[in-house]
Amino acid sequence: MKQTAGALLSSIRLDRSSRRSISVQLYQGLRDVILSGGLRAGERLPATRTLAKETGVSRTTVIDAIDRLVAEGMLVSRVGAGTFVSDTLDRERPPPVGDAARPSGGKQPRLSYAIGHAGADFARRSWLPHRGGAFVTALPALEAFPMAHWSRISARLMRAERGVMMGYGEPKGYAPLRRAIAMHLNVLKGMNCDPGQIFVTSGAQQAFSLIGQLLLNPGDRVWMENPGASGARNAFLAEGADLVPVRVDDEGLVVSDGLQKAPHFRLAFVTPSHQQPLGHVMSLSRRFELLKAAEDAQALVVEDDYDSEFHFGSAPQPALSSIDANERVIYVGTFSKSLFPALRLGFIVVPPRMVEAFDRLFMDWASGPPTMTQAITADFMDEGHFATHIRLMRRLYKARYEALMEASAQLRGAVEVQQTSGGFHTPARLAPGIDEARVVAQAAQKGVTLVPLARYCLAPLDKAGLVLGFGCATPEDISHGISVLRGLPEIAAQLDQ
Amino acid sequence: MKQTAGALLSSIRLDRSSRRSISVQLYQGLRDVILSGGLRAGERLPATRTLAKETGVSRTTVIDAIDRLVAEGMLVSRVGAGTFVSDTLDRERPPPVGDAARPSGGKQPRLSYAIGHAGADFARRSWLPHRGGAFVTALPALEAFPMAHWSRISARLMRAERGVMMGYGEPKGYAPLRRAIAMHLNVLKGMNCDPGQIFVTSGAQQAFSLIGQLLLNPGDRVWMENPGASGARNAFLAEGADLVPVRVDDEGLVVSDGLQKAPHFRLAFVTPSHQQPLGHVMSLSRRFELLKAAEDAQALVVEDDYDSEFHFGSAPQPALSSIDANERVIYVGTFSKSLFPALRLGFIVVPPRMVEAFDRLFMDWASGPPTMTQAITADFMDEGHFATHIRLMRRLYKARYEALMEASAQLRGAVEVQQTSGGFHTPARLAPGIDEARVVAQAAQKGVTLVPLARYCLAPLDKAGLVLGFGCATPEDISHGISVLRGLPEIAAQLDQ
Repeated sequence: MKQTAGALLSSIRLDRSSRRSISVQLYQGLRDVILSGGLRAGERLPATRTLAKETGVSRTTVIDAIDRLVAEGMLVSRVGAGTFVSDTLDRERPPPVGDAARPSGGKQPRLSYAIGHAGADFARRSWLPHRGGAFVTALPALEAFPMAHWSRISARLMRAERGVMMGYGEPKGYAPLRRAIAMHLNVLKGMNCDPGQIFVTSGAQQAFSLIGQLLLNPGDRVWMENPGASGARNAFLAEGADLVPVRVDDEGLVVSDGLQKAPHFRLAFVTPSHQQPLGHVMSLSRRFELLKAAEDAQALVVEDDYDSEFHFGSAPQPALSSIDANERVIYVGTFSKSLFPALRLGFIVVPPRMVEAFDRLFMDWASGPPTMTQAITADFMDEGHFATHIRLMRRLYKARYEALMEASAQLRGAVEVQQTSGGFHTPARLAPGIDEARVVAQAAQKGVTLVPLARYCLAPLDKAGLVLGFGCATPEDISHGISVLRGLPEIAAQLDQ
Repeated sequence: MKQTAGALLSSIRLDRSSRRSISVQLYQGLRDVILSGGLRAGERLPATRTLAKETGVSRTTVIDAIDRLVAEGMLVSRVGAGTFVSDTLDRERPPPVGDAARPSGGKQPRLSYAIGHAGADFARRSWLPHRGGAFVTALPALEAFPMAHWSRISARLMRAERGVMMGYGEPKGYAPLRRAIAMHLNVLKGMNCDPGQIFVTSGAQQAFSLIGQLLLNPGDRVWMENPGASGARNAFLAEGADLVPVRVDDEGLVVSDGLQKAPHFRLAFVTPSHQQPLGHVMSLSRRFELLKAAEDAQALVVEDDYDSEFHFGSAPQPALSSIDANERVIYVGTFSKSLFPALRLGFIVVPPRMVEAFDRLFMDWASGPPTMTQAITADFMDEGHFATHIRLMRRLYKARYEALMEASAQLRGAVEVQQTSGGFHTPARLAPGIDEARVVAQAAQKGVTLVPLARYCLAPLDKAGLVLGFGCATPEDISHGISVLRGLPEIAAQLDQ
């Protein structure tokens, strides 16, 4: 049944308080009427005078809206005859598909095989909290960041040469930042890398994705620490990799376990300087064992060094990459912990023989972080603020760690917090009678964040536990958190008297 | 043959002007000697006193260096007996591989099949220049950017709540930015999207990569405009897609050509608002034809809207996405042209039925731009500076375009610059006698940048041409550029008398 112009137009809502002009609203309203089939192809539009009266706007506004639709080809104007809905519409417009006509599963796009398959195995990440407290993991002490220096450098760079700061930056990363990173790694991690080996990424996550895209084929076997980090795991899964959970003990990845499960592996993912999340430092003999296994299998090793700046002892362990005589180790670093997560700044150090392949990757289709972010970080490092910040944070995290160890004595019998040599989280073992999931839920109800060890597991572990963060929790937060834990039914029942 | 300690130690170079402490240098030097096999497993180190004398540093420094090596497990200290190279080393260390022993092609890592295969077909990008001038493409007028506003907003945000600005941001993008983008698109592009449909990316390039990873399978046929943009092309190739070059004419993508070459396509990539690089606006009838073809093939369409803010007429074309009744179009936008390239900020607008899949992608393994970058952009938009900037730039680019058209009359007979309706580049046709590559080379010698049309081609075109950028060139630059072109041997010979 044909509707009158008035009825049609009454479906157009004009909102005078909107930021969009009335003319734009009218244009969009008419367009919706046409696209929904309310006005058919070839149909004549009411006169602009009529439209103006019906919609209560000026004729100029109506003409303006109609002009846009004519320019766009929705309407055609015929001299002396009026304005008509374009014939094009009926010939070409696909029939609108009602929900009933949708193919089954039509609510889902067709995913790639790899993602569709991997999706089920992805480690679910939740949006990490941006507020500190006991016992949030992965978040540094934001309140202690020297924002004044950062802000001053930023302001200065915004007055710097516009071409450099605003134009297309060097694809592999801002050169002064790559120089600063190389110097930092060579001094602190015993490495001997050249700025040309460094590629700046949008956080470690992009690094893992790019490594996976460049080097993994569907079905490739990848050794993953179990328990282990979830970011790399998902990135490799997305490339169709076949992940092999490999045991971890006090010396780090158990290489013999990997060799038994998958001798022909393509890649091994490790966190040698501070196993994520168990906290062990990989022993030297294991390091050599891993490098030998990689050499034998012609495999590669990804070394994820996410927080080793914060060691409590006199000097950090050198990077695995620093003893890699055969160019098998790809090192991934991040500023998420040493500066702050929202920077989304990480980097890859590739062995010399791989520089060319990565150069092409970055030149042809990768896209890194904003130049400004990179330039502020470079100046922050060059001016010495980075080294100072790390030194101060080491002390602060050590103090928080000690506060945690001291307070946790109150949980004796129920929760045993493990010692660690650095970083800002440490695992805790639960007494056999305590259920991991239940204690996490009970703590959450009291506003205390606990991360279950299970979240890091690719394959079931024989031990239950928690991962306790202390980086963004003051000693008071920690002390409060421990007393909350003491009071939880799941824990109280197991405490030593 | 055994070397003396003195000979060994002489290979260690200590540089007192270096930023690394002498102790660190000594530690690294000793380490290199050990790792290179200069000191064997079980071998005794000379006394610290001897080492101090041989290297000319204090004994404390030597002890410090040795302590690090002991802590690291490279050396072992036996009470009363001295310090020895760890036995671990010989058992575990893989034999260093000399160049001769390397497998052939050992300089290259094993790439993924997809990348290895795609690599040969990648459109080579060069590092885009960050200095303006005639006839650089893709670079906006950096000198006209209101940096004072940007800088003020930045300074204010650095004093804002640290948790929000520094912690882990929302994976799909900073909510106020997604709101501002939705409003912008709804007003300017006739779209009707919700902030929940928007995903913020590290430039359009990351958007193309993520779309490819999520939705393409190896062998999937993808319609690409020919000539067309190279960023998306490489991203899809990297996923193993089978690219189908589809012809482009004055109305945009020739849908019938695509249907003839690959009726069962999975994805079509188009630049409907301003064909990259030919500059045509896709006609409405082609738009409907494309949507119908996508619906018939159950395919998706990627709409790359890289510069449509800068139209010279009264209003820009609405997005293809705005007439997409069947949720087939994924819209990709960027701030590289409307703000500046070094921001590395882009976004994806996905149809409602795909939101869940993209949400999971971003939640589980994608990594976006820094929160600060997103927050500054959001405030810049909310305060109205974005709209003002675009309005001013439209005028400025139009003036530059007119300067180009006027000056190019001097090239009549040799170079015919095509009219365009917006953006900041336009193609130019070369007279039959002129060689594209030769004119580009001759201009480069005179300091003038010309981009050959061939750079945008996936399959050979029947016409030779150039793409002339005018966004970052003042009218003086343009006038100078044209007189340089007039003087080139390749062009001068063809000019009308």
